[in-house]
Amino acid sequence: MTNSAFLRVLNGERVNPPPLWIMRQAGRYLPEYRELRTRAKNFLDFCYSPALATEAVLQPLRRFQLDAAILFSDILVVPDALGRKVWFVEGEGPRLEPLIGEEHWRFDEVERAIQRLAPVYEAVGRIKGSLDANTPLIGFCGGPWTVATYMLQGQGGDKERARRVAYERPLDVDRLLDLLAEMSARHLAEQVKAGADCLQIFESWAEGLPPLQFERLIIKPTQKLIQRLRQIGVATPIIGFPRGAGAEISNYAQRTGVTALGIDTSVPKILAPHGMPVQGNLDPLLLVVGGTALESGVRDVLERFSGAPHIFNLGHGITPEASVENVARLVDLVKGRA
Amino acid sequence: MTNSAFLRVLNGERVNPPPLWIMRQAGRYLPEYRELRTRAKNFLDFCYSPALATEAVLQPLRRFQLDAAILFSDILVVPDALGRKVWFVEGEGPRLEPLIGEEHWRFDEVERAIQRLAPVYEAVGRIKGSLDANTPLIGFCGGPWTVATYMLQGQGGDKERARRVAYERPLDVDRLLDLLAEMSARHLAEQVKAGADCLQIFESWAEGLPPLQFERLIIKPTQKLIQRLRQIGVATPIIGFPRGAGAEISNYAQRTGVTALGIDTSVPKILAPHGMPVQGNLDPLLLVVGGTALESGVRDVLERFSGAPHIFNLGHGITPEASVENVARLVDLVKGRA
Repeated sequence: MTNSAFLRVLNGERVNPPPLWIMRQAGRYLPEYRELRTRAKNFLDFCYSPALATEAVLQPLRRFQLDAAILFSDILVVPDALGRKVWFVEGEGPRLEPLIGEEHWRFDEVERAIQRLAPVYEAVGRIKGSLDANTPLIGFCGGPWTVATYMLQGQGGDKERARRVAYERPLDVDRLLDLLAEMSARHLAEQVKAGADCLQIFESWAEGLPPLQFERLIIKPTQKLIQRLRQIGVATPIIGFPRGAGAEISNYAQRTGVTALGIDTSVPKILAPHGMPVQGNLDPLLLVVGGTALESGVRDVLERFSGAPHIFNLGHGITPEASVENVARLVDLVKGRA
Repeated sequence: MTNSAFLRVLNGERVNPPPLWIMRQAGRYLPEYRELRTRAKNFLDFCYSPALATEAVLQPLRRFQLDAAILFSDILVVPDALGRKVWFVEGEGPRLEPLIGEEHWRFDEVERAIQRLAPVYEAVGRIKGSLDANTPLIGFCGGPWTVATYMLQGQGGDKERARRVAYERPLDVDRLLDLLAEMSARHLAEQVKAGADCLQIFESWAEGLPPLQFERLIIKPTQKLIQRLRQIGVATPIIGFPRGAGAEISNYAQRTGVTALGIDTSVPKILAPHGMPVQGNLDPLLLVVGGTALESGVRDVLERFSGAPHIFNLGHGITPEASVENVARLVDLVKGRA
């Protein structure tokens, strides 16, 4: 796949204009996705249907000239596969039975969990078979701490409860992070075996941690995950996206073993080691607002990261309120056609 | 007040052990505060009662050896004084009539607003008269963007709506920030006139802004506020606390004109210009958790900031769930008595 600008950038090459994809590009801002979504009775069933997941991945590629596809799935298939109950409340988000009493702190074997995720790997294979030869496919998982926060709290939002348990039950939480690092490495390896060309680790909740806890909850589990993945023999590039890492972003880039750094909306300049590819970081709100604000936002991102191998993306997932016209305009602006 | 370690540190001196105060030290974790709070029918009335506000300030000083007092008030007295309706929903937080239609985008004159805040300045005078001669008093206001987000959204939480209005109505929002910079400068100047020895600007919502917006919404309005304050003739030290500024923290420290940098829980090391005093940044959750986690957290903060003039504080306000025993233990740990 030597013609993929996306993979060339991940290999350290500067490409102009930069390749582009959009976090959550298969999503609710697309009317055809909203229609497709009605064909499964709930969100997890949708993720576990290889046919529906494949169609969802292809939808945005038919509309826009995007330089990568990403598996349609969810970071919470991992706790689901480990035997924790996961469900999605329409319009609110995911819910899990939180880890409180001893009876909750029990997880199924990794081997068995990986078997349960067979439909995900089947989807990867189908998607890969449906993409044209020059469109790379990104596989993904959540960062161990991000997945753990959902498991500890039972939902997203404020991370205080998860952080508190991390202080109060240090051994249990460290063991959980070890399990998630192992499970995530295996999950990513299976995605690569099924056809993924690149991997992204979504550490959506890297924010608000004191440095000792950032080291313990973000850096170390990510190191373990990536070391294990390399040990299994997976050599594909890995984009780490520690959203909200703030002043810790360089530390994350330098020490976790990621190939490339995903940067959130608030990161002002290149904070990755020299030559490391960066991916980001347009404010997703600009795809709602449009107009000259979108234009100057895109120009600003292009200028700020022109000194690094750069993959254009948003600083966070596209929102349901974004307009299809603004996405088309974004693609034109990045490709220099506007 | 040459015996104040707090003011000496703000003057650039390194003091060991560092002086200590606690954001929201007068607050709901204290049983005597919860009792006192029942004497006013709502939170704003409490803030506007010089007698109650004075008593609230003194309560924690009777229990703990703290090196500074802070005015009991709220950052939202500013929009209240400007004629916007502000109220507090018990257990949820502040509410304002959000700025939506043209009829909302009207504000009273600064001169009149300052007159309305006379009870706040009376409280400052009373508090100052009640403190012992070596305990400095901190006055404060919210950062212009932080106050504006409440005004734009009608409440706290997700800042998306405020950011969206900032994109969609750029002139209106810039004018609002100018008004808030002017009003805040006047408000701080009056507090100094009434007896405040130092000032803090709480920019509680500095997080999640793209760099162009950080420049526009945080840096420039803070510069204007501080320039105006200096122009009025106020020479007292100013602590800027841009919570969540992340990778922008050095930019804020270098360019706004603050004397000292307040740092949130997630800031890992000294990111202020050489010699600039820093204030922070223990995780407030550790005052809930206590035990060895509290001990190692305190030790870590002391070590990390031993190279700068340092005021020990939390990285965010103390929570109602914190225990009085843990606060006493914190004071002992910082003062080297434990």
